[in-house]
Amino acid sequence: LARGKFVRARELLHAMDPADVAHLLESSPPKARLALWQLVDPDQEGDILDELSEDVQRGILKLMDADKVAAATEGMETDDLAYVLRGLPDEVYRKVLKAMDTQDRSRLEQVLSYADDSAGAIMNTDTVTLRPDVTVDVVMRYLRRRGELPKGTDSLYVVNKADKLVGEVPLSVLVTAAPTDKVREVMDAEPEPVHYTMAETDVAQLFARYDWYSAPVVDDEGHLLGRITVDDVVDIIREDASHSMMSMAGLDDEEDTFAPVLKSTGRRTLWLGVNLLTALAAAAVSNLFEDTLAQLATLAVLMTIVPSMGGIAGSQTLTLVIRGMALGHIGTQNARFLFTKEMAIGLLNGLIWAGLIALIVGIWKEDMTLAAIIAFAMGINLIAAAAAGVVVPLVMKKFSIDPALAGGVVLTTVTDVVGLFAFLGSATLLLTQHSL
Amino acid sequence: LARGKFVRARELLHAMDPADVAHLLESSPPKARLALWQLVDPDQEGDILDELSEDVQRGILKLMDADKVAAATEGMETDDLAYVLRGLPDEVYRKVLKAMDTQDRSRLEQVLSYADDSAGAIMNTDTVTLRPDVTVDVVMRYLRRRGELPKGTDSLYVVNKADKLVGEVPLSVLVTAAPTDKVREVMDAEPEPVHYTMAETDVAQLFARYDWYSAPVVDDEGHLLGRITVDDVVDIIREDASHSMMSMAGLDDEEDTFAPVLKSTGRRTLWLGVNLLTALAAAAVSNLFEDTLAQLATLAVLMTIVPSMGGIAGSQTLTLVIRGMALGHIGTQNARFLFTKEMAIGLLNGLIWAGLIALIVGIWKEDMTLAAIIAFAMGINLIAAAAAGVVVPLVMKKFSIDPALAGGVVLTTVTDVVGLFAFLGSATLLLTQHSL
Repeated sequence: LARGKFVRARELLHAMDPADVAHLLESSPPKARLALWQLVDPDQEGDILDELSEDVQRGILKLMDADKVAAATEGMETDDLAYVLRGLPDEVYRKVLKAMDTQDRSRLEQVLSYADDSAGAIMNTDTVTLRPDVTVDVVMRYLRRRGELPKGTDSLYVVNKADKLVGEVPLSVLVTAAPTDKVREVMDAEPEPVHYTMAETDVAQLFARYDWYSAPVVDDEGHLLGRITVDDVVDIIREDASHSMMSMAGLDDEEDTFAPVLKSTGRRTLWLGVNLLTALAAAAVSNLFEDTLAQLATLAVLMTIVPSMGGIAGSQTLTLVIRGMALGHIGTQNARFLFTKEMAIGLLNGLIWAGLIALIVGIWKEDMTLAAIIAFAMGINLIAAAAAGVVVPLVMKKFSIDPALAGGVVLTTVTDVVGLFAFLGSATLLLTQHSL
Repeated sequence: LARGKFVRARELLHAMDPADVAHLLESSPPKARLALWQLVDPDQEGDILDELSEDVQRGILKLMDADKVAAATEGMETDDLAYVLRGLPDEVYRKVLKAMDTQDRSRLEQVLSYADDSAGAIMNTDTVTLRPDVTVDVVMRYLRRRGELPKGTDSLYVVNKADKLVGEVPLSVLVTAAPTDKVREVMDAEPEPVHYTMAETDVAQLFARYDWYSAPVVDDEGHLLGRITVDDVVDIIREDASHSMMSMAGLDDEEDTFAPVLKSTGRRTLWLGVNLLTALAAAAVSNLFEDTLAQLATLAVLMTIVPSMGGIAGSQTLTLVIRGMALGHIGTQNARFLFTKEMAIGLLNGLIWAGLIALIVGIWKEDMTLAAIIAFAMGINLIAAAAAGVVVPLVMKKFSIDPALAGGVVLTTVTDVVGLFAFLGSATLLLTQHSL
């Protein structure tokens, strides 16, 4: 960049919203990203870091020394700060902690002590609390004296003397309440707190289901620890959704679109390696029938059709089941129904596509036996695909394996092996009899 | 159900939150679903309908007559009501409109006139507005007289005499402002309204990026039309995410996990039909090399490996690009960089897997020429896969085709055809020379 453009670019960046700068960084190749980072407003660095995805954020943090990180993260919300700090190397991390004041540090250490991906790790500790016995008028005077409320405050929490949560006063209720009313009279006395150990994915499900904007977080005894706000939940929902889709292609869901070539190649290698094994397993099955293939090359031409159709049909069922499990719709009570339903679809699909492929092969290859063989294999494989599509993810879930990650490869192995066995096996029986 | 259980089940259902009843209905097979629906609290019917996914909701609405629908939907928010009404057959729909009072009807007709999936269609019209010149004290007295605020109100909107939006007062600011302050002094004078024609997906991106809880909706002249709240945005984000994943498997993203067999089979048929065509295209390519396959059955055994690896590598790239486009990270400026990067990964992958497959085939089949042939085909196909993985979705987007829906099938066709041509073609050249 020429000198003038450089200054102009910096001015532009400083005038932008941190969220927009983060988006620009995410959309930039690595070199441009680092060049841009040099130009951002130091005061905005913390907010920008918070908006970045893990991969991109870590790439940038690696280049900053402890003092800079400490300066950049000053004044961030506790949960956001914890998110950033989890990405630091140990030594930098300890230096950053040291640079903070005592109160901030102890609050932060508290949040960092909660399990990653739990409600505790995504909560803010900056709650505004009230006592049940004061009047709305007193509350209003307190708030005016207090000044600006923490970002995303839509409810005030009511706690007793032991700091236990006893109620919740949404701001929308507070502003319509009579000044003489007691907090106890206007509060929602049945708040629905989240336990600090709840998995963030489950927290997100609750927010989505009950249309929450925020939720209080409590410990075993019901003491108020903090609050979770919907903006963090939106991020979790986006990540969870991206996770399923990326996992199904064997990708790391935090993978940066513009990650360096070597890093990306390394991450994808495992998946390609697993797939090579399944492809070799299929080849080993065909190898059993090498004599049959040698007798009749037409079989080789046609033998990929049945496994391919099985793979597609099976992955439709698999995707449906994975989504159903993610939404919490599938449990032990309805698994049997789902299995029966998908088997019926598999049977119906089997009949339709067996008929069609028999017709096509009969006309193309003018061999009725061959047509019957491929139709038989197609029918068997589509039923097997439906069964595997339901059973594989349910079994994986039982053993705590992520079906989005490993389901596809197991399913394809099943449909490849069953499809090839059914097709080449029956061809060996029927066509070598023919050729006797 | 026995009589006693029946009564008990009804009591249980009536005591549940509408969102939980909706979740139970979604998780139930169709027959159980209809039985449960007979038991729900008539007063909750509207809220439950609103929480259901389209497919399930429509299944239930079909069974209700116009009077029942009108009764169930009384008192619903305008956007939710519009969502339900869009699912009704025309005659029922007109009857429901007739049964409403004039003011509700005209407000509803307004919302229904906005394009489905636009900001206008998901907004609520129940905004609370202020004038800039009144004091905070007057506002508070007005709110107390007014009573309960509309659900999800976190900001009040400031409009001038022409009803144009000039500012926004978050409740969190209102409660800390001095009573003598004018609204003009405490308001955010640069509100960021959404235009009513903006696509709901874009609205969701804005909410996620800027951590909004609600946003005002305006027309061309800046008149305030309504507001969008984050709870509706959460639903849109979940739907969009599910859309990509389901589309990639050729499923309708509104597909109910427990949909009837015939309906599900019908929906999946198109996708299986398209896949049959691509499988036949691959078979047609092999068919060109039938003579070669007849000479050497080992080729038939090995020929599925290269297309399979190409398919996996290509779909990794495709998935990454589709996600990047969904997040708005990929545009014309960085498409070239992305292409170069993915080509480099493809080249590197090509080298790795060509080497490995050459080793495996060399040892297994003890034929160095064959090992060289499959290595060559693997290299070519992994590079082709990377190119197709970037180019296919970008071209499709240009022609407004959904790459999540159609990308996979085009990609697989490319990797099948290129893989088979490279493998069988070079085998024909090299091995038939050998056998001369």
